Amino acid sequence: MSKYKSIDFANDNREKFIAMRRDLHQHPEPGWLEYRTAAMAADRLTALGYDLKVGKEVVKADSRMGLPDEAVMKAAMDRALKEGANPKWVEAMGYGFTGMVATLHFDNKGPTVAFRADIDSNDVMESQDDNHLPVKEGFVSQHAKAMHACGHDAHLTMALGLAEYIATHKDGLHGTFKLILQPAEEGVRGAKSMADAGVVDDVDIFFGMHIGINKDIAGCLACLNNGFLATTKMDVTFKGYSSHAGGSPELGKNALLAACTAALNLQAISRHSKGNSCINVGVLESGTGRNVIPDRAYLQIETRGATGEVNDYICKRAYEVLNGAAAMYENEVEIKEMGSAPACINSEDLAKAVQVIAKDLGIFKDVPLVNEGGGSEDCAYFLERVIGKGGRATYMILGSAIPAPHHNPKFDIDEKDMINGIAFTGALVESYLQGSK
Amino acid sequence: MSKYKSIDFANDNREKFIAMRRDLHQHPEPGWLEYRTAAMAADRLTALGYDLKVGKEVVKADSRMGLPDEAVMKAAMDRALKEGANPKWVEAMGYGFTGMVATLHFDNKGPTVAFRADIDSNDVMESQDDNHLPVKEGFVSQHAKAMHACGHDAHLTMALGLAEYIATHKDGLHGTFKLILQPAEEGVRGAKSMADAGVVDDVDIFFGMHIGINKDIAGCLACLNNGFLATTKMDVTFKGYSSHAGGSPELGKNALLAACTAALNLQAISRHSKGNSCINVGVLESGTGRNVIPDRAYLQIETRGATGEVNDYICKRAYEVLNGAAAMYENEVEIKEMGSAPACINSEDLAKAVQVIAKDLGIFKDVPLVNEGGGSEDCAYFLERVIGKGGRATYMILGSAIPAPHHNPKFDIDEKDMINGIAFTGALVESYLQGSK
Amino acid sequence: MSKYKSIDFANDNREKFIAMRRDLHQHPEPGWLEYRTAAMAADRLTALGYDLKVGKEVVKADSRMGLPDEAVMKAAMDRALKEGANPKWVEAMGYGFTGMVATLHFDNKGPTVAFRADIDSNDVMESQDDNHLPVKEGFVSQHAKAMHACGHDAHLTMALGLAEYIATHKDGLHGTFKLILQPAEEGVRGAKSMADAGVVDDVDIFFGMHIGINKDIAGCLACLNNGFLATTKMDVTFKGYSSHAGGSPELGKNALLAACTAALNLQAISRHSKGNSCINVGVLESGTGRNVIPDRAYLQIETRGATGEVNDYICKRAYEVLNGAAAMYENEVEIKEMGSAPACINSEDLAKAVQVIAKDLGIFKDVPLVNEGGGSEDCAYFLERVIGKGGRATYMILGSAIPAPHHNPKFDIDEKDMINGIAFTGALVESYLQGSK
Amino acid sequence: MSKYKSIDFANDNREKFIAMRRDLHQHPEPGWLEYRTAAMAADRLTALGYDLKVGKEVVKADSRMGLPDEAVMKAAMDRALKEGANPKWVEAMGYGFTGMVATLHFDNKGPTVAFRADIDSNDVMESQDDNHLPVKEGFVSQHAKAMHACGHDAHLTMALGLAEYIATHKDGLHGTFKLILQPAEEGVRGAKSMADAGVVDDVDIFFGMHIGINKDIAGCLACLNNGFLATTKMDVTFKGYSSHAGGSPELGKNALLAACTAALNLQAISRHSKGNSCINVGVLESGTGRNVIPDRAYLQIETRGATGEVNDYICKRAYEVLNGAAAMYENEVEIKEMGSAPACINSEDLAKAVQVIAKDLGIFKDVPLVNEGGGSEDCAYFLERVIGKGGRATYMILGSAIPAPHHNPKFDIDEKDMINGIAFTGALVESYLQGSK
Repeated sequence: MSKYKSIDFANDNREKFIAMRRDLHQHPEPGWLEYRTAAMAADRLTALGYDLKVGKEVVKADSRMGLPDEAVMKAAMDRALKEGANPKWVEAMGYGFTGMVATLHFDNKGPTVAFRADIDSNDVMESQDDNHLPVKEGFVSQHAKAMHACGHDAHLTMALGLAEYIATHKDGLHGTFKLILQPAEEGVRGAKSMADAGVVDDVDIFFGMHIGINKDIAGCLACLNNGFLATTKMDVTFKGYSSHAGGSPELGKNALLAACTAALNLQAISRHSKGNSCINVGVLESGTGRNVIPDRAYLQIETRGATGEVNDYICKRAYEVLNGAAAMYENEVEIKEMGSAPACINSEDLAKAVQVIAKDLGIFKDVPLVNEGGGSEDCAYFLERVIGKGGRATYMILGSAIPAPHHNPKFDIDEKDMINGIAFTGALVESYLQGSK
Repeated sequence: MSKYKSIDFANDNREKFIAMRRDLHQHPEPGWLEYRTAAMAADRLTALGYDLKVGKEVVKADSRMGLPDEAVMKAAMDRALKEGANPKWVEAMGYGFTGMVATLHFDNKGPTVAFRADIDSNDVMESQDDNHLPVKEGFVSQHAKAMHACGHDAHLTMALGLAEYIATHKDGLHGTFKLILQPAEEGVRGAKSMADAGVVDDVDIFFGMHIGINKDIAGCLACLNNGFLATTKMDVTFKGYSSHAGGSPELGKNALLAACTAALNLQAISRHSKGNSCINVGVLESGTGRNVIPDRAYLQIETRGATGEVNDYICKRAYEVLNGAAAMYENEVEIKEMGSAPACINSEDLAKAVQVIAKDLGIFKDVPLVNEGGGSEDCAYFLERVIGKGGRATYMILGSAIPAPHHNPKFDIDEKDMINGIAFTGALVESYLQGSK
Repeated sequence: MSKYKSIDFANDNREKFIAMRRDLHQHPEPGWLEYRTAAMAADRLTALGYDLKVGKEVVKADSRMGLPDEAVMKAAMDRALKEGANPKWVEAMGYGFTGMVATLHFDNKGPTVAFRADIDSNDVMESQDDNHLPVKEGFVSQHAKAMHACGHDAHLTMALGLAEYIATHKDGLHGTFKLILQPAEEGVRGAKSMADAGVVDDVDIFFGMHIGINKDIAGCLACLNNGFLATTKMDVTFKGYSSHAGGSPELGKNALLAACTAALNLQAISRHSKGNSCINVGVLESGTGRNVIPDRAYLQIETRGATGEVNDYICKRAYEVLNGAAAMYENEVEIKEMGSAPACINSEDLAKAVQVIAKDLGIFKDVPLVNEGGGSEDCAYFLERVIGKGGRATYMILGSAIPAPHHNPKFDIDEKDMINGIAFTGALVESYLQGSK
Repeated sequence: MSKYKSIDFANDNREKFIAMRRDLHQHPEPGWLEYRTAAMAADRLTALGYDLKVGKEVVKADSRMGLPDEAVMKAAMDRALKEGANPKWVEAMGYGFTGMVATLHFDNKGPTVAFRADIDSNDVMESQDDNHLPVKEGFVSQHAKAMHACGHDAHLTMALGLAEYIATHKDGLHGTFKLILQPAEEGVRGAKSMADAGVVDDVDIFFGMHIGINKDIAGCLACLNNGFLATTKMDVTFKGYSSHAGGSPELGKNALLAACTAALNLQAISRHSKGNSCINVGVLESGTGRNVIPDRAYLQIETRGATGEVNDYICKRAYEVLNGAAAMYENEVEIKEMGSAPACINSEDLAKAVQVIAKDLGIFKDVPLVNEGGGSEDCAYFLERVIGKGGRATYMILGSAIPAPHHNPKFDIDEKDMINGIAFTGALVESYLQGSK
C-alpha cells in the first residue's frame, strides 16, 4: 500500500476507468453536442453525492461561440437518447448548453478547489488500420466523422475518477471541491461562456490539465504551460455579385478576388515586437463555375499572439484588411467570431507547489516546468478569471506516449498515464483540501 | 400549301417533334455521357436510311477534353440501358466516344453539306416552380442535377427533323448530306475530337446553329455570329505541404496562398491591343481546417480572346503566372486543359446567301447579321477546319423568347421556334443540295 | 503653278517655315509653360491681322489639370523673356494660362471654321547622337530635359503657315476662321480648360491634326481617327506612418504595401464587355530606407477606355481599389486627376468630304480612313463639344516617316510633310470658307 | 583621486576627448569612406606606440558588402586629403579597405584582450535647429547629407581614449591589447570582412560597445545584449521590358507588378516557430512615366531573425518569392547581398564579470543585463568568431540620454557618458591585462 491512497484507488479501479474511457471513445460528440457524454457524467456525479448545475445556469448564452445549427443539435440529442442518455439531463441541457458544474462541500471551512475537464470530440474520421489500438481492441469510434483525437475521453474519465476519489475519501477535508465539465474546447468555443457565467469566481485554487501534447514528455507531469497563445477564430464570408465572365465581366463583384487579396494581406500583417504573432487562412472556398464571376467566398481564419495585446493587434489589423478587401471589390463582408482564448498565464508559485507534490508521488519519470508553444487552450479563460479574482491557477500537461499527433486519425493515449492521472489529481486536490495550505 | 415544302413538313410533324424534344428534356445527359440520347438518334437515323459512324471512328481519343471518370461513364451507360437505349449503340460508343456522324448520299453529283448539332445537357438542377413550363406540362428533368438548360434538346430534335425532311424529300438532290451529332459542347470539350477525326474534311458547306441566346432576337434568324471568343478551360491544382499553423508554420508550403497570389496575378494579366481578352478564376477551393496550413488548392480557370492569338497570349501568361506562384510557395502545380475553342469565324458570303433564303422563307420576324460577344462555342473548331480546307461555313442563331438566361434553372425555349427551325434548316440544306449552287 | 494656290504658298515659303519649326525645336517648353512659344505666335498672328484672345479669357481656370508649381512657372517666364518673348504676352498669359485663340472675320457671311494646334513639348532629354538630324543640322533642343518629341513644333508651324495663307488669301472668303493654340496636350491636361471656356461653341467645322503616329502611313493623310481612347490620368499618394522595421513593426502603417496591393488590384480590374479597357501604374515610388516601414507611396496611374462609359467604369473601380487598399493599411490616400480626355469621335461625313479634297490635292501617297488605337488625345474634348453643339469635326493624321517613336529621344519628323501639311490645311480651310458648302 | 586611475585619466583629459569627438562629428564619413577618420586615428595610435595594420591586411576583399562606386571613394579620398588626412594612410587604405587594427604587446605573458569600435557615419542631413546642441555649440556636420547620427564619433573617441590610457599605464600589464577599428557598420557591411580576415582569431577576451540605444538606460551600463537579431540586407532589381500601356500592353514585361507581388508575398512569408522573424521592403522605385509599362523596379529589403536559423529561413523564402515573382512577369531578377550580421550571442559569464567591475567603478546609475530587441549589429560576427575559437566575448550598451532616436537628424549623445565610457573601458581592459584572470 502506497503512502498515497489515491495511487491505490486508481490502480484498484483501473478496469472500470479504462472501460469508461473506451465507452466514451466509441461515442464521441463534437462541441456543443456532448449530450450522451455529459448525461453519463451527470448520472455518476449525482450518484456520488455531488450537487449539479447544468445548462443555462453555468453557460452564459451570449458568450458561446461557434454553435452548430439547431437541426444538428436536435439530431445529436436524438442520437444521445437512442444511445442511452438520461432524458432528464438532455432536456436540462437544451440547445447549446452542454456544460456542467458538480460541487461537493466538506464539513470544515476551507478553500474552494476546482478541476476542469473538457469533454468534446474532433471532426476526424478515425483510422480503421489494424494496428491502431482502438481498432485492435474494439473500441473504435461508432460515430461517422467524429473521433476523440485529442484525449478528451481520457480527460473526462480522469475527472470522474478524481470526483469519485474525493467523494469516497472526504473525511476530514476542508472547503469545497468543484468539478467543471466544459463543452466545445475544440475551436476554443466553450470556456468563455462558463467563465462569464461566473463558475470560477469563488475558486481559490484552479487546475486544468491536458494529456499527451508531445512524445518528449511521455510519462512526465509538466506543472505549468505558459506557451499557449492567445487566439481568435473567425469565419468570414464575402458577398459580391455574380456575372457571366465572358459576356458581362464588368457587372460582377468578384468575391473570390476579394478573398484572395484578403488572404495575402492578412498573411502580410506586420509582426509585433512584443512576441510571436500568427495568422492563418485555413480554408478558402469560392465559386460555382468556371465561367461565372464568383459572388461568394468563405474563409476560416485564426489569429494567435504571445499575449492578448499581440493577438488583439492581429485581430484589429485583420478586420481592417477584410473590410478593405471587401471595399476594393464592392463586396459586403461578414465576420463571425467562432472561438477565442487568451494567452495562458499560470501562477508560478502554485506550479512549483504542484511540482513538489508530483515529485513526491513517485509515479512520474520527471516533473518539469514546460512552455510548449504554438497551440492555444480556452482553459486560459478560467485561469485569467481565477487569477483576476485573487485566486491561483495552473495548467498542467500529463505526458503520454502518443503514437500520432493530436487530431490525427491514429491519435491515441497510453491508458496507463490516464490511471496515473487519476492517482495524481486525486492526491493533488486532496492535499489542497486538507486545511493546511 | 407553302412554296417551301419544309414548312409544311415541320408543321405537319409538330406533335412528334415536340414530343421528341420533351422526351430528351426529361432525360438530360451531361457531356461524354449522352448514351440514351445518341442511341435514340442512331435508331431513328438508321431507320431513315442514313449510314452511321459512331464512337472511335468519329471521335479522336487524344483530342477529347474534360472526360469524367470511368465509373461515372459506367453509371451513365447503365442508366441509359435502363431507360431504353439500344445496347448495340451503347456498346459501340464505349467509354467517352458518344459522337456520331450520319451520312446520306444522293444520286447526282454535288457538294457535301453538313449540319452539326450538340446533344449534351448542363449540370444544373431544374426549377420545380409551378410556372416553369416543363413543370406545368410535366416534362421536367428526371435526372438529378442535370438539365437541358442550353437548348440542346431542341438542337437534336431539329437535327433529326432536318434529317427526316431530307431523307423523305431526296428526289433530285445532288451530293451528300452529313449530320454531325457532337457530345460535350458544354465546357467546349467535344468538338475538337470530332474535327480532329476529320469528319468535316470533305465538307463544302457547313452549318451550325444555336437556339435562344437573347430576347432581343426572339423570332429572328441571325445568319452568322463572329462574336464567339476563343477560349481555353483549365483545372489547376497546387500541391504544397501542410503544417500546424501555430506550432510550426515554417514547415508549411502554403497552397492556399500560392493559389490566391495566382488568382490575383492571373486577373492582372495585361490586356491585348488586338481585342477583347478575358480570364476568370471561377472556382477556388483550398484547406481542410482553420489551424492547418493548406497543402492543396484547386482552381477552375478559363481564358478568352477575340482571336486565337489573343487567347494564346492569355494562356501563355497564365502558365507563367501559375508556375511563378507555385515557385513562390515551394508548391508543385498541375495544369489540365479541360476544354477549348477557337474564335468563331464565319464565311460572310455564305451568311449573306443564308440571309436571302431565310428572308424568302417568310417565317422570321427579321434576319439580321449579328455579332453577339462574350460567349464561346466549340463548333468554331468545325468552322475553322471547313474553311481551312477550302469550304464555307457559318454559325447561325435561331432567336427564341427565353424566359431565363441559358444555364439558369428556369431556362426554356419556345417550341414554336424549334418547329420553325426544322422548316428553315430543311429549306436551307435542301437549297444547297439542288445542284444549282 | 498648281490648281491649288496653297501648294505654291507652302513651297514658296518653305525656308521660312522650316526655320520657324527649327527655332521652336530649339526652345521646347513643357505644358503650361509655353511662354516664348505662344508669345512668338501672338506677335505673328497680330501682324497678320488676327484678333487675339489670350490667357484667362480662353482658358477656364478650374478646368486646367496637372499644373506645375508657381516657382516652375516663374522660372519659365523668366527664361522666355531672356529668350526674346514679348513681355506683353507673357504678362497677359500669367500663371498657367498659356492658351490662345486667333480670329479672322471675312466680309461675307458664312460658317466658322476652326483649326487647333497643340504647342507644348515633352519631358525628354533629346539625343545628342550625330546621326540625329537636329544634331547634324544644329537645331537640337537648348533646354535641359525638354524636347519636342511629339511634333508639336511642326503643329504650331503648320498652324501659323495656315493662318498666314488664309490671311493673305482672304478675298472672297465667307464666315470666320479661328485658330486655337492649346497648351499642355501632353498628359491630356489642357484641352478641357479651353473647351470649357467655350472657345469652340460657335464653330461649325472643326479640324485637329497630328503629324507622324506610325511609319505605315508616311506620306499619307488619314482623314479621321476613331481609335483614340478615353483616358484619365491620376496621381495618387498613400500616407501612412513610419516605424523601425525591426524594433516596432506593429506601429507602422505601411504605405508601400498599400501601394503594392493597390497596383496589383488595379491591374486586376475586370475587363468591360463594351470594348477595350486599360489601366497602367506607370510609376511607383516609396520608402526612405531599408529598415524603415515606408510612410509614403506615390503612384502615377492612367486609365483608358474605348468609350467614355468604359473609362468611367475603370475610374470608378480604381477609386474603390485605392480607397480599399488605403483602408487595409490604415493609410490615407490622396487622388488627384492630372489629365483626361474623352474617346475621339469624328463626324464621318466631314471626314469623307476631307478625303475628297485631300485626294484631289494630289500631294499624298494615299488618303485612308484610319482607326489607330491605343493612344489618347485631348483634342477629343473639342470634337465632343463641337459635335454636341451641332457642328462637325474630325481629327486627321498627317503621316510622316518618323525615325523613332513619339516621345523617344530620337524622334523627328520629315519637314517635307510639314510643308505639305501647310498646303493641305490651307486648301482645306479655304474650301470651307468659300461660301459654297 | 579615485581607486581607479582610469577615472582620473578620463576626467583629466575631458576637454581633449570632447574636442576630438566634436572634430569627428564635423567630418562624418559614411561606410567604406572613413579616410580622414581612420587616418587621424592611425596618426594617434602610431604616436602612442601601437603596431598598426591597415587596409587589405585586415579587411578581406571578398567579404566586404555594400561598397560604393570607385568614383565615390575617389571623391572621399580627395576630400579627406583636403581636410588634413595623412596621405600615407589614405594610400594604404586604398579603395574600400578603411579598416585598421592597432596592437600593443606587454612584457609579461597573458591573454589577448580586444576592443572594437565602429567609425562610419550615416546618410542623414543633420538638423540645423538652434536647440540642437551641435548647432548651438558650433560643431554641426560640415558634410552634406552625412551625419554621425548613431554615435560612432563617440565610439572612436572612446576607443582612442582607451588606447591612450592603456598605452600610458602599461607597466605591469600582461598579454596583448588589440584595438579594432571597423568601417561600414551602418548597413552591417564591414565586420564580416575583418572577422574573415582573422583579426580576432587570437583574441581571448573581446568587447564591443554601443552608446545610447534608449533613454531608459541613460547613465547605466548594460553588460550584454542578446537581443540583436541576425539580419541580411538585399538590393533587388527586376528587369522586364517596357511598352506603351495603351498601344501594346501585351508586349510589356511589367517589372513594377513583379516588384509589387514580390513585396506582398515577401511580407506574407510564414512566421517561424523558433522566434522573432521580420522582413521589410523599405524602398521600392519603379517606372518612368504614366503611360509606359515599367521595365525596371528596384527594391531595398532586409530580413531579421531571432537566430541565424530563423534569418536563413526568411532569406531562403525571400529568394523563392523574388524568383517566383520574376517568373510570373517574365522578368529577370538580380539579388545583391548588401550587408549581414548574425544574431548577437554573448558569453554570459564574461558579462557577469563585467557587471562586477562596472558596479565597483561607481560611475553608473545601474548595471543591468539587458536584451534590447529589434535591431542588429555586425559586431556579432566578431563575437561569433571569438566564441567559436574558444574565447569569450560580450557586447555592452553604454546608456546615454539621447534627445532623439538613432538615425534622427537631431540625434546626440551626452558627452559626460562618453567620458565615463573611457573611464570604464580603461578599467575593464586593464583588469583583464593584469595577469590575474
